[in-house]
Formats: sequence, C-alpha cells, structure tokens
Amino acid sequence: MSVLANLTGPSDLRGMSDDDLAALATEIRELLITSVASNGGHLGPNLGVVELGMAIHRVFDSPRDRVVWDTGHQAYVHKMLTGRAGQFGTLRKEGGLSGYPSRSESEHDWVENSHASTSLSYADGMAKANLLLGKDDHVVAVIGDGALTGGMAWEALNNIAADNDRRLVVVVNDNGRSYTPTVGGLANRLTEIRTNPKYEPALGAIKERLNRSRIVGPAAYEALHAIKKGVKDALAPQGMFEDLGLKYIGPVDGHDRPAVERALTQAKKFGGPVLVHVLTTKGQGYDIAVANENDQMHQANPFDRATGEAVNVAPAGWTSVFRDEIVRIADERPDIVAITAAMLYPVGLDAFADKFPDRVFDVGIAEQHAVTSAAGLAMGGLHPVVAVYATFINRAFDQVLLDVALHQCGVTFVLDRAGVTGDDGASHNGMWDMSLLQIVPRLRLAAPRDGAQLRELLREAVEVDDAPTVIRFAKGAVCDDLPAIERIGTTDVLSRDEAKDVLIVAIGSFGHLGADAAEIVRAAGHGVTVVDPRWVKPIDPALVELASGYGLVVTVEDNGRHGGVGAAFTQAVRDAGHDVPIRVHGVEQEFLDHAKRDVILERLGLTPQAVADDTLAALSRNSTDG
Amino acid sequence: MSVLANLTGPSDLRGMSDDDLAALATEIRELLITSVASNGGHLGPNLGVVELGMAIHRVFDSPRDRVVWDTGHQAYVHKMLTGRAGQFGTLRKEGGLSGYPSRSESEHDWVENSHASTSLSYADGMAKANLLLGKDDHVVAVIGDGALTGGMAWEALNNIAADNDRRLVVVVNDNGRSYTPTVGGLANRLTEIRTNPKYEPALGAIKERLNRSRIVGPAAYEALHAIKKGVKDALAPQGMFEDLGLKYIGPVDGHDRPAVERALTQAKKFGGPVLVHVLTTKGQGYDIAVANENDQMHQANPFDRATGEAVNVAPAGWTSVFRDEIVRIADERPDIVAITAAMLYPVGLDAFADKFPDRVFDVGIAEQHAVTSAAGLAMGGLHPVVAVYATFINRAFDQVLLDVALHQCGVTFVLDRAGVTGDDGASHNGMWDMSLLQIVPRLRLAAPRDGAQLRELLREAVEVDDAPTVIRFAKGAVCDDLPAIERIGTTDVLSRDEAKDVLIVAIGSFGHLGADAAEIVRAAGHGVTVVDPRWVKPIDPALVELASGYGLVVTVEDNGRHGGVGAAFTQAVRDAGHDVPIRVHGVEQEFLDHAKRDVILERLGLTPQAVADDTLAALSRNSTDG
Repeated sequence: MSVLANLTGPSDLRGMSDDDLAALATEIRELLITSVASNGGHLGPNLGVVELGMAIHRVFDSPRDRVVWDTGHQAYVHKMLTGRAGQFGTLRKEGGLSGYPSRSESEHDWVENSHASTSLSYADGMAKANLLLGKDDHVVAVIGDGALTGGMAWEALNNIAADNDRRLVVVVNDNGRSYTPTVGGLANRLTEIRTNPKYEPALGAIKERLNRSRIVGPAAYEALHAIKKGVKDALAPQGMFEDLGLKYIGPVDGHDRPAVERALTQAKKFGGPVLVHVLTTKGQGYDIAVANENDQMHQANPFDRATGEAVNVAPAGWTSVFRDEIVRIADERPDIVAITAAMLYPVGLDAFADKFPDRVFDVGIAEQHAVTSAAGLAMGGLHPVVAVYATFINRAFDQVLLDVALHQCGVTFVLDRAGVTGDDGASHNGMWDMSLLQIVPRLRLAAPRDGAQLRELLREAVEVDDAPTVIRFAKGAVCDDLPAIERIGTTDVLSRDEAKDVLIVAIGSFGHLGADAAEIVRAAGHGVTVVDPRWVKPIDPALVELASGYGLVVTVEDNGRHGGVGAAFTQAVRDAGHDVPIRVHGVEQEFLDHAKRDVILERLGLTPQAVADDTLAALSRNSTDG
Repeated sequence: MSVLANLTGPSDLRGMSDDDLAALATEIRELLITSVASNGGHLGPNLGVVELGMAIHRVFDSPRDRVVWDTGHQAYVHKMLTGRAGQFGTLRKEGGLSGYPSRSESEHDWVENSHASTSLSYADGMAKANLLLGKDDHVVAVIGDGALTGGMAWEALNNIAADNDRRLVVVVNDNGRSYTPTVGGLANRLTEIRTNPKYEPALGAIKERLNRSRIVGPAAYEALHAIKKGVKDALAPQGMFEDLGLKYIGPVDGHDRPAVERALTQAKKFGGPVLVHVLTTKGQGYDIAVANENDQMHQANPFDRATGEAVNVAPAGWTSVFRDEIVRIADERPDIVAITAAMLYPVGLDAFADKFPDRVFDVGIAEQHAVTSAAGLAMGGLHPVVAVYATFINRAFDQVLLDVALHQCGVTFVLDRAGVTGDDGASHNGMWDMSLLQIVPRLRLAAPRDGAQLRELLREAVEVDDAPTVIRFAKGAVCDDLPAIERIGTTDVLSRDEAKDVLIVAIGSFGHLGADAAEIVRAAGHGVTVVDPRWVKPIDPALVELASGYGLVVTVEDNGRHGGVGAAFTQAVRDAGHDVPIRVHGVEQEFLDHAKRDVILERLGLTPQAVADDTLAALSRNSTDG
C-alpha cells in the first residue's frame, strides 16, 4: 500500500508516473475488497470506477472543480483519492467513514443523498451559479446508466442541453447493470452498442484518433465529431443525446485510464456542457464480483474474499416472508402483478419473477412511473403490488395521492426497510412513510408486528380493490411471532390486565418493544393493556373507543413523530370527544447520522426501558394532578 | 349547432360526411369560445385539438379503446364528442361539467388528475393489462410537448419502448408552447423542425405518400419509415424517439383531420407501441387566442370575445404582491435568482424575468429538477427562489427533504394557490403542503395573513441561508391588511381581551376568519385573544408558552387537518407539558369536488360562524366539566 498510503490528496495524482498510477489502481482495489469483506458495503460499483475516479481527479482540480457522484455508493474510490484511504477500517461504523459522500468528512464531497438520478440537477445548478458569478470552474457529474432511467435525470439533461455556456461535464458510467440489468429502451440501445461486433475495432480507431488529436476547445469537439461520423450509425448512441442538443464524447473504455483522461480533457476544454460516455465493468478486478450476475454483491454483507460467500448471514428477514407469501398469493390469483423499480432481488420479487415472468415489471429507477403505471394496471383489471424501499415512496407521493388514491385504484404498496435502518445514513432511513401516507385520503396502511401478521395483512391488502393499501415493515430479521389474545375491530390485543391504568399502542415491529415496556410498567404495580392496531390508517374506531376507558395512552412507532400514527390516533381520540392523556413516541423529526439501528433507537429513547420510564413519569403526574 | 346538437356519441362521427365534419369543427370552436368567454376555462389548448380530438374518436372506439388526455385541460373537445356538448353552459360551476375529464361524468373519461406528464404511465399500465388479459383493445395517450419535459413522461417512454407488443399509441400534441414557450433541448429540437424551410414541402410529400399507402401493420410502418428516410435528416425528430426503440410517425399537420386520421390508422394497425407526432396551433380558429403570446389565455377568466379582454378582472392578488416584492429584493441582492416550472406568468415571475433575464430559470414542467437545481445554485453561492403552485410541490417532496433540507441549502419556496382553490377540482387544491412540509427537518414555513406580511415574510425567508424556507399563500385576491398590536416571539397578536378564555391561532389567509370568529365569541361574553404565528414551522416556543395560560385554544388553517399546523402545535404544547384543550380546524382529509372556494369552505365548516359555534360549544363543555 505504498502509493495509496502516501497520497495526501488529488493533487498528488497529477505528478505521478504511469507505474505508480498502475500500482495505485491495484492498491485501491485491494483496499476496496478487504474493507467491504470486513465491514460490508458496495463493492461492485466501486471496483468499476477505479480508473474513472483516478482520471477525474487527474483532469479536474477538486474541490475548486466540483465532482458530484450520483447515488453516492460509487464514491469509495473518490474517498481514497481525497485523503481518506487510512480510515477505511472504520467504513460504515458509528463515528467512522460514511458509506456515501459526506460533507462533514471532506471539502471534496458535495452531495450525500443516496437516492438516484439527482446528480445532474445539482450539477446544473452549480454550473449556472459558476456562470453567473463569473467563475470558470468546472462541475463534473458522474451518473450510471441505471440512474439515467430516472425521470429527474432526463429533466436535467433537457435543461443542461438548453444552454451552451455552462462548464459542466456529465460522465455516464455505463456498466449495463447499475442494479440488476438496466431495463427499457435506453438500456436496449446501450446494449446494442456494447454487443455490436464492430465495437471493439471501431473503439480502437477512435482511441487512436483521439491520441493524435492536438487541437482543443470547440474545434476539438468538431474534429472529434467528424471522426466519429463514420462509425456513428454502427455503434454510437449520441443520436439520443445530440437530438437534445448535448455534445457527446464516447464511448470510451472506462478501464483504460489514459483514454478516459483524454476524453475528459477534451470535454473540459470545450467550454460548454458535454456528455462523456464511459463503459465500465462492475466488479472489475475481482472475478467473483464480476460473475455475480444476480447482483447480490451490489451491496454486500461482510464476505469471505476467497469465495465471495457472505459471512454472518442474517436470519431470514421480513423481505423473505414477503417473498414467499406473494408467490403463494399470485398462485391463487392470476390478477396479481408485481412492479419493482430496479430492485427485483432486494425487495424479494425474484421468486415471483421466476415463476411468473410475464407478470412482473421492472420499470428502472423510476418510482413515479412505477406508481402511475400501477394505477393503469389497476384500471385495466389487475391488482398490482408495488414493492420498493420505504424511503423511495417519497419520490412518488403525488402519484400515490392523485393517480392512485383519487382514482380509487386497488394498488398494494409493499414498503421494505421502513423505519430506522441505521448503517447507510440519513437518506436511507425509512422514517417518513407513515407521516406522508397519513395525508392521503382513502389510503389504508398496515404495519405488521411479525411474520404471521405480514402474511395475513398482505392478504387483506390485496383484497381491497378501490383504494391504495400499504404494508410497511423494517429492515432485517423478522420479529418473533407475538400471538394475540383477542381481536377488537381490526386491532389485536396482545396482553391485558384488569386495571385500566395504561393502554400501550405498539405499531408494527415495535410490538415487542411495547410488550417489554408493559412488563416494566406492570412490575411497578400498574395495570397495562398492549394492543397492535395492525391497520394504522384509517384509525380503528373500536380502538378509539377502547382508549377512552384508560387513564393513559402510550403510542410507539418506528416513524417520525410528526404526523405519524400517534398524531393521527390523537386527533381521532380528540375528535371523538375523549380527553385521555396520550404520550406519542417515535423518531424525532431530524436527519439521523449513520450508526447501528440499535444504537440509534437507544439514542432516540425508543427502548422498552425509556418508554416505560416515560410512562411511569406520566402516571405519576396524573396521580398528582388527580 | 345542428351537427353538434345531434351528436349522441363518438360512434356517430364515424358515419359522417366530410361536410358535416367540417361544420362540426366550426361548431365545436364556436361553443368553446362562447363557453369559456362566459365561464372561464382553458381556451387555447382546446381550440388547438379540435381536429385531433375528432380524428381520435373516428379512428378509435372509445370507451373500449381508452383515450387518456394528459393534463386534462385539453379535454373539452373530447367532452363535446362524447355526448356532453349540451352541458357546456354549466362548465366549471358547482354540480356542472368539470373543467377536466371526470369519471363520474362519462365512461369515456379515465384520468382526472390535472398534473402534467402522467398520461404515458397510465397508458402503459392499461396496455400491459390488455396484453395480459388477452384483449386487443387500444390505449391512446395524448401528451403535449410541454408535458414531455416532465421526468415521469421520460420514465414512461423508456418503459413503453422496452416492449413491442402493447397496443399503445402515444400522440405528441406539439404546439410549441404548452404554457409559455416550452424550454430546453427537447423544445429546441422540436422548434428546429417547425421552423425548417424544408418542412412544408416535405410534409406535403409525406402526406401524399401516406395517401397512396395501402399496406397495413408492421409492413406499413416499414414502408412509411423508408419513405421518410429521405427527409429524416432534414426535419424529423425521430432520432431521439427511435434511439429509445419507439416507432415514430410524423410530423403530421394537426389541423388536417384526414392526415391525422391516416397517421392514427397506421399506428393502430401496427400492433405495438407507436408515437404519432402531431403539430397543432394553440388557439387555432380564434385569432386573439393565437396571438396571445404571453399565454394569459392558456387559462382564461371570462372574457369579451370581440376583444379577448377579460371581464370582471379580479382585484390585485397575492401573486402580484409577490411579483412586485421579489423584483425589489432582487434589485438589492444580486445573489437572488428565480426558478419556475413552466409557469413564469402564473406565479408572477414575469417582471423579474424582464428585469433580470439572466437570473431566472424556467426548467419546464420539471418540479424535481427545479428543486434540486436550486440546491445546486445554493451550493454555488446564490439564493434561489422557487415559485410554483402549492399542489406541485407534492411532486418534489423527496428533493425538498433530501436535496435541500439534508444539505442545508438556503432555498426559498414560494407556494401560490395554496389551500382550497375550488373551481378546478380535486387535483388543483393546494391543501397538502403544510402537512407535507411539516415532515421536513430544518425547513421553516411561513403563511402570511395579508400583503404586508407576504412582503415582510418573503424578506425574512431570503435571509435564511442554511435551510429551506417556504412562503405559502392562497389563490386570488389578497386579504385586507390586518395590523398587529404586538409581536411576541415570531407571533403577531391581532387582538386581545383581558380574560384568557380562548386563544385563536389563525393561520395565513384565515387571519380574517379568526378575527371574525373572535367577534362572535366575544359577543357571547368570552375573552378572546387572536394571534397569527406568521412562521408556522418550527412552532414558536413563545406561542406555546402563551397558549398554556388560556382555557381553550382554537387553531384554524387552510390546509388538511392531518399533520398540519394545528397538529404540530398540539404536539409542541403537549411536549411542553401543557394540557390546555385544543380544537384543530382545517380541511377534512378528503378529495374535494369542484365548486367555488366560498361554497367549499362553508361545506367544511371553515367560516367565522362555524368556528365560533364550535368554540362556544367547547367552552360550554369545559365549564360543565369544571
């Protein structure tokens, strides 16, 4: 690790010999593999951008020139090149290196949102600002072919192409499969290029011409353009981009660092927006990752580097319960279809896709289209199940509200990784969905407390044919089954004492938290009832009625405190004319730094002990008041 | 009106003579002009699609074939052709014809969401369903060139192009300016085609060939394609669409009905997704509308048909206060830039654009890009002001949350038409924003009660450089100034009695409602204080403290009751340990049918009398309890 260890920042790269640069690439790959094998993280995408990251930092002058990494999980190489190689042992640990760019870590980091397709919009804004302020600094946005399927990337391209003065370089990192193989017309076109037998020799010819090119600026672009005309029809996709008015350079072999540097240099000198199309191989340099077709190593758990096999595999999680049950339901009901937004495996739709290939639609990183095409499918007589991470439903709120709910479409949303997720930082936490979706009229929302409830609620949800239904559950291991002793309305009673001192309303995966808190409160001599509402929207009138008979109500949910289930429940109780005191527990309305889920919950007071302590304090105040 | 009056439905169209069809087109235009002159509504877009609407209903068999109109304001002609011409006297009146497609009006209507760029996603879903269910019915989506700038339209095109079996016809209604002139690379490309001197003769040649074409299905497409090859480079934009893998027919003169019918027939017979590019003129047949460059007649108030001048012009509204003040602020601060999403005039940025043309960015119908490029501008050292209708911020929630708030960008959002808007139906009401934005950490939200407050709060907002700020106000006439007698924290006290029986917290434009309700409560012998919090997020701690001294608190806001200001205020009061009873008034969480704003507010109990009655009832319960 001699080269990497001595690297203090990107400017060091610019004086390095070719031999040192080659050694550096090897050392970076080695560190990537060992770090992710030990701590987990994104391996394949980072192995694919080693040469690209080096080329960018040799051609551009960060942080004066700003580099924006779309879906920041491909920024490990950038982190190593900007002085953070020594900290990779702490990757994704609390207080350690974030798995994404982080402004608090480095002046070279600008964007820490892990949601895809945003980089071009940020970059467009930055480049506009540079222009208005008279700066000739460059902005470089690196975006994958998968993220290009997201609508906002197209909105940005349309705007970038509208103007010719911004110093903006869009690098399309085309690896053919940002998650699972990229879908749609765009992907088909890109695949054509990659698989065209004329590609290799033609690319060689282009490279050679580029090598010989000595002119710079717009003239260089024109020359390059003329050179490429001859092979254009055979292989280049610039038609699509150039029809938009965008200058195009490529395709370039993304593992040929000097070639990438030449293309970036041309783009830099052009003086207006340019798109550089770079072809890379996900997992490059580690055969096991390259061969990993089903993309489980896109984000890997810690693994054995010799075999690629994950170590410390988590027990069967919520996802796998959904994975099995949706296939069973689909077996019984031919009208069930499934939609995923480029996440077939992570959301557990792979078994469904194997068994019913015609009934599953991977729409790309395109949540808006996922939701509204589901409305169309429902209008057409089918029942779509849209499975996405909870944090991504934020991107299609308007579509859930107006396209699905206003139109009374029977669409079931399955939100995985809901609540506090932890390791991946603020933008991965699924702590917004229950507040967001409480706003939507007609929508019905369920939070299962265990695997049995997930199966039961999923079946209830797909029975609803005139409104959106939502099932949301946490990341990771499914909770142990928590049997009910009675069902009142749609609410399950989990335990009940004679004395009606406290009613604990425990939402979803916090069922155990509620049950454990109840034991502590009981031990202090109070009567406690614990219920799971199962359906948390609309609020169950039977539960409102039940609550009115208690001295104190406590709600606890793995979701933002503002506008969540506790808030909706409080309003329903007040609207019914009851004045029982209600304590609402949930996630504070703030952005959470990355750390293990348990650590974050402890910090937020979302533990049995903390909830019980707050309950006992409230009981004590009540008895003083009385 | 003999032809139109006798039309019972679209099937009648198919047996009609050319003379009758020409007469029908004239009658439709006449009815469009007289109806909108009298009731207001969308004139230009509908005058532009008379022949297109007739052609679609002659070639396709609605409702078996489904016709989806993007941004449904172009559906008046469709309504007339599907048996609703006789009801145009009731257009946009309560209980009368909706200004948008409406499923309760007709089996020919499918989508009533007025938000742009959704039609292709609906249609893709419907066409997928038809294919899975073995139906050979067609789906036709009509989308304007403006709506194509919206990201979700691109997401849909990418998906539509991925498959070749769906019977789906995408009609691009290209009038060059869906609102104000369409922006961006796409628009530039389309404009090139329209202004190319070779266009007219070439189009003539294409038409002639189409006339002579007798072959059908894929073969016809291939033949057509071959014919067009010769003129392709000169004028056709199919490159962009065909690179995506979409079959393309066009451009076709949209006012030459037989030509449009031939193109649609070709598309229908192809058996897979086809894009038909139709060129139309907004306002066609009414010179005043065609000449209306600045697009005020896109949505017109009632007007004098001889002159085009609006009658009963509303008094200067909230928009005009913002329009003037933002220019004054920008005069003083060169770092202020403005962003609009294809709504320069409606949101009042036209004066800003006139004075500072380099500092305003119209991004197209692209709210996501509007928000995230604003984050980029802020990172670049400027202070962007993003002005959109309140209902459209729904489309960029994730971007406000993660791209702006998480990144601590100083971006000011100005939300016009917030609250209950009325006439245009459910999807135009801006009743979601204060609930949605309460979820966002760090964000600061203000609701001015009058013009003076709008100016003051706007100035306070643009001073914040490390968090998003939002100013939201209603549609229409600005409220009369309501002076404060004192400011406590950020809260204005509007009136105060000695006795602390009731505290009315009146939000934004409901200041007068609160003041008037207070008078009624006072007349019944109770002491009332009326306050306007001005900044409604975060909740002002001084207001929480103030509230704790009252016997009853009443909040009233022009926003959904769930998760709005009342809910946030209630939580803040409870968190501070106060148990004063709180009555939360707001818009019921439901979709509102179109009617005048006053009628809707009356129905919802959002009048001084209704709020006062509820307050008196609560006071009476409190005193009984006591």
